[in-house]
Amino acid sequence: ANDVLRVDKRGIEALQYGSVKGLPDLREVIVNELLAPKGIDAGPENILITSGGLEGINLLCQVFIDPGDVILVESPTFVHCVEIFEMFQAKCISVAMDEHGMVPEDLEEKIRRFSPKVVYVIPTFHNPTGRTLSLERRMKIAELGSRYDVLILEDDPYRDIRYSGEDLKPIRAFDRTGHTVLANSFSKIFSPGSRLGYVLASERVIEKLLDAKTATNSHTSMLPQVLCAEFFKRGYYPAHHRMICDLYRERRDAMIESIDRHFPVGTKRTFPDGGLFTWAELPGDVNTTELLAEATSDPEVKVAFVAGEGFFIEGGGMGKNCMRLSFGAVPPEKIRIGAERLGRFLKKKV
Amino acid sequence: ANDVLRVDKRGIEALQYGSVKGLPDLREVIVNELLAPKGIDAGPENILITSGGLEGINLLCQVFIDPGDVILVESPTFVHCVEIFEMFQAKCISVAMDEHGMVPEDLEEKIRRFSPKVVYVIPTFHNPTGRTLSLERRMKIAELGSRYDVLILEDDPYRDIRYSGEDLKPIRAFDRTGHTVLANSFSKIFSPGSRLGYVLASERVIEKLLDAKTATNSHTSMLPQVLCAEFFKRGYYPAHHRMICDLYRERRDAMIESIDRHFPVGTKRTFPDGGLFTWAELPGDVNTTELLAEATSDPEVKVAFVAGEGFFIEGGGMGKNCMRLSFGAVPPEKIRIGAERLGRFLKKKV
Repeated sequence: ANDVLRVDKRGIEALQYGSVKGLPDLREVIVNELLAPKGIDAGPENILITSGGLEGINLLCQVFIDPGDVILVESPTFVHCVEIFEMFQAKCISVAMDEHGMVPEDLEEKIRRFSPKVVYVIPTFHNPTGRTLSLERRMKIAELGSRYDVLILEDDPYRDIRYSGEDLKPIRAFDRTGHTVLANSFSKIFSPGSRLGYVLASERVIEKLLDAKTATNSHTSMLPQVLCAEFFKRGYYPAHHRMICDLYRERRDAMIESIDRHFPVGTKRTFPDGGLFTWAELPGDVNTTELLAEATSDPEVKVAFVAGEGFFIEGGGMGKNCMRLSFGAVPPEKIRIGAERLGRFLKKKV
Repeated sequence: ANDVLRVDKRGIEALQYGSVKGLPDLREVIVNELLAPKGIDAGPENILITSGGLEGINLLCQVFIDPGDVILVESPTFVHCVEIFEMFQAKCISVAMDEHGMVPEDLEEKIRRFSPKVVYVIPTFHNPTGRTLSLERRMKIAELGSRYDVLILEDDPYRDIRYSGEDLKPIRAFDRTGHTVLANSFSKIFSPGSRLGYVLASERVIEKLLDAKTATNSHTSMLPQVLCAEFFKRGYYPAHHRMICDLYRERRDAMIESIDRHFPVGTKRTFPDGGLFTWAELPGDVNTTELLAEATSDPEVKVAFVAGEGFFIEGGGMGKNCMRLSFGAVPPEKIRIGAERLGRFLKKKV
């Protein structure tokens, strides 16, 4: 930080008012180092820097969502985004998912039936399930957005945290009509506390988002923007990227092995090729919300997870036998101990 | 920055996710060093850190404003806030102002007539006029908020940039019912590019704002929060505060003297006891919007100001003979040269 601010004399820039769109060299970094390698042809004029990935989604709602508008979401989906959608009084309707992500046939049917404004999709290492949308479905969803004139909101914060499997192009790479808006974040690849994210969209959409951004907080904080831009420009990202992928891969492997070894027979779990979560479906008639209270208070267990029910907007007990397990922040040995304890506890319950 | 992040080991905190409310020690700083000396009795639980002062206003609209709600504003007022209010589809109605700020009699009449949700007021070194609301009116407006159950939104970013006159307590200091919400900013006293501000409100209001903040951008960027908290805790603020006040006082004095010396006979101008602006009313039937185009393109003048008309929501030519002159960013010798050139130009026009 000292080096950037004093030696490189970017301190004044970091402390002064900046552009609503965001720091020019950070937008260049995004275009050249994060988007071009993913097959996305865009210029800095297509980028708006936001205060974290969620802000991009908030701004998009600000601009496009009127009360009563329909937003299609995956089942299950990321609850915090549903909270944003509901704050704008949108009506969320869920689209079926299988192990390859959102099901395009169900999506098309629901687009016809509900004329949604937006389709919200987390294609890569989905939160909460860890699933990844297949290449064919990515192409298909981009095409449905264009055909039915619906905005596809592609929320892709985990994309670059891949440990195995083949890298897939974002939905945005297959969009020829500007219907796909990509919201992304530096939280997973640079720093969460910096609150840096970006939106990639057509210039027409960016212009509208700029007005909303101006009226939300003028522009994103300059200090983290300057540091993040320099972090990439000085070439620190590739080594850091390898380091975090190695770190998280080991944790994922520990989590998956431990679930397979210790969880009750009949448990299904996803195998995430990246990201921070796996999703387990327990056998029998259990309620993970109730189990959570017990598991965290029982001194023999003391392990937390996120109960599955909250990720389904349908209600009616959907996902009540499911749980999201996070492995990102815990060292492998703790994951092994925790999963063993939790498994022992679950075996008594199912 | 290096010192704070490395030596004091606050680097990890600055890069990790933080609390929605904001950094605890920054909230302590606000309560103890910025609010208590102004006669405001509040705890850290009454503070929400925001991404600049405008974000607090945005969040308040998010929570309280439904389409069609009325917001009362000063005449003239700060245009960017009107843009926020209009984004939330509020109806802005203006309240008369004189040299002592918003006129309470007109305010009360309009509260009765329009049942507004919010009264938006910039009490100290008002933007664009530089005027300051008198002590009696501060007490009166706090009382009107309580009596008619209306939120008073007190936007006070220039308060601590005072060069002359007596310090006045904020409206919030006279509020006994939690109807006044104070939005403030670190832009003028620490750094604009950091995008740091805060809202002070009752716990009931803060709870609601927290939900909106979570759904807007999770929390404010940690890096500037950590640096700003340390800036105050290490005692750098008093000397910095004196330095900027001395700097701007000299600029204000140069601006006022130059206007009095060079502007056309019959020009009225405000005398701002602080802040960054003065407001001039030109004699005769002139249109400052047209004059601005000429003044900036004429190689003999090349001086910019902000035309008055845009600050009035009433339209119909209100303020068309007025201009806002900013002295904050310009050294005194340039202010003198610029005001002399502009004055010579204006004398030819009126």
